Amino acid sequence: TKKKDLIYSNRGMTLEEEINSSNEHYLSSGRAVIHKKPTPIQVVKVDYPKRSAAVIREAYYRQSSTTDYNGVYKGHYLDFEAKETKNKTSIPLSNFHEHQILHMKRCILQHGITFVLIRFSFFNRVFLLNSSYLIDFWEDTMNNGRKSIPLAFIEEKGIDVAYGFNPRLDYLDAVDKLLEHTNK
Amino acid sequence: TKKKDLIYSNRGMTLEEEINSSNEHYLSSGRAVIHKKPTPIQVVKVDYPKRSAAVIREAYYRQSSTTDYNGVYKGHYLDFEAKETKNKTSIPLSNFHEHQILHMKRCILQHGITFVLIRFSFFNRVFLLNSSYLIDFWEDTMNNGRKSIPLAFIEEKGIDVAYGFNPRLDYLDAVDKLLEHTNK
Ligand SMILES: [Mg+2]
Ligand SMILES: [Mg+2]
Repeated sequence: TKKKDLIYSNRGMTLEEEINSSNEHYLSSGRAVIHKKPTPIQVVKVDYPKRSAAVIREAYYRQSSTTDYNGVYKGHYLDFEAKETKNKTSIPLSNFHEHQILHMKRCILQHGITFVLIRFSFFNRVFLLNSSYLIDFWEDTMNNGRKSIPLAFIEEKGIDVAYGFNPRLDYLDAVDKLLEHTNK
Repeated sequence: TKKKDLIYSNRGMTLEEEINSSNEHYLSSGRAVIHKKPTPIQVVKVDYPKRSAAVIREAYYRQSSTTDYNGVYKGHYLDFEAKETKNKTSIPLSNFHEHQILHMKRCILQHGITFVLIRFSFFNRVFLLNSSYLIDFWEDTMNNGRKSIPLAFIEEKGIDVAYGFNPRLDYLDAVDKLLEHTNK
């Protein structure tokens, strides 16, 4: 089982790196077209040196107005956010932002498939959670509800995402389950 | 007709600015969720001044691996590129890049709706052209075909996009026509 340990162990990749690597696999195998949205950057000053590329000399990170990833899979628009937590019993809602929730709601109204991939780092477990649950928790919180989503809830309502070799994180398998469930 | 001239005239906006403004309108009116993808930037050096935001001090523009815009509309994944030309009779294929064509092909395989919005600045006319035509021209060019798409072809096979007040450029109206056509 040494090889298996090597293959399946989490070799210090962040959740985003795992998703990016899975997306490359999906892209090259023709399974889906999903990309990380670049971080928006506000460029203030640019130098244009002769005979070489423009150099940005002053710029600032801006808050994204949407989520981390989007793309197309089997005719569906997919849109999702990736979050990891070191917590062992829940994921705090402070990991999410109002504009992400709003964006997800808007996508749902257009019949997009929106979800969150949540990693509990301590257990090295990843779940796909339909955004509608996140939105419910978010709105409860606004009304003095709980400030986090319990792992127990995610285990019940979410879909397990398995680690593998390639793709590293086969989250489209979980999306298939989500779609099956939605079509019933 | 002075007011009409004012409203419908092209007040020096670029095609991208017109599309961005239309997208804001679509977003706030709940008609669609479509965003410009941020330009990818390779960050090399960042300063972290005390008590203020991180400042990027060296960074470079990177070539995007995809297209300008994507999003979701009535359950459809939309993905498109915006191009303007000053030419009067055709749009040179040199306006497009291999990776954009590849990306469009991949999206089509996943049943996404992909197209190009082309503005002929001289006439101030905008057309939506299904990517499949662009791909055909592109592949012909590889086989020593023509190096541009004639305006006459675009007038015949493309869909006219009308200028208006708000949205500035109602390209979703042209998408509706495209979808009708596709469903026939
Ligand atoms: Mg994230
Ligand atoms: Mg463009």
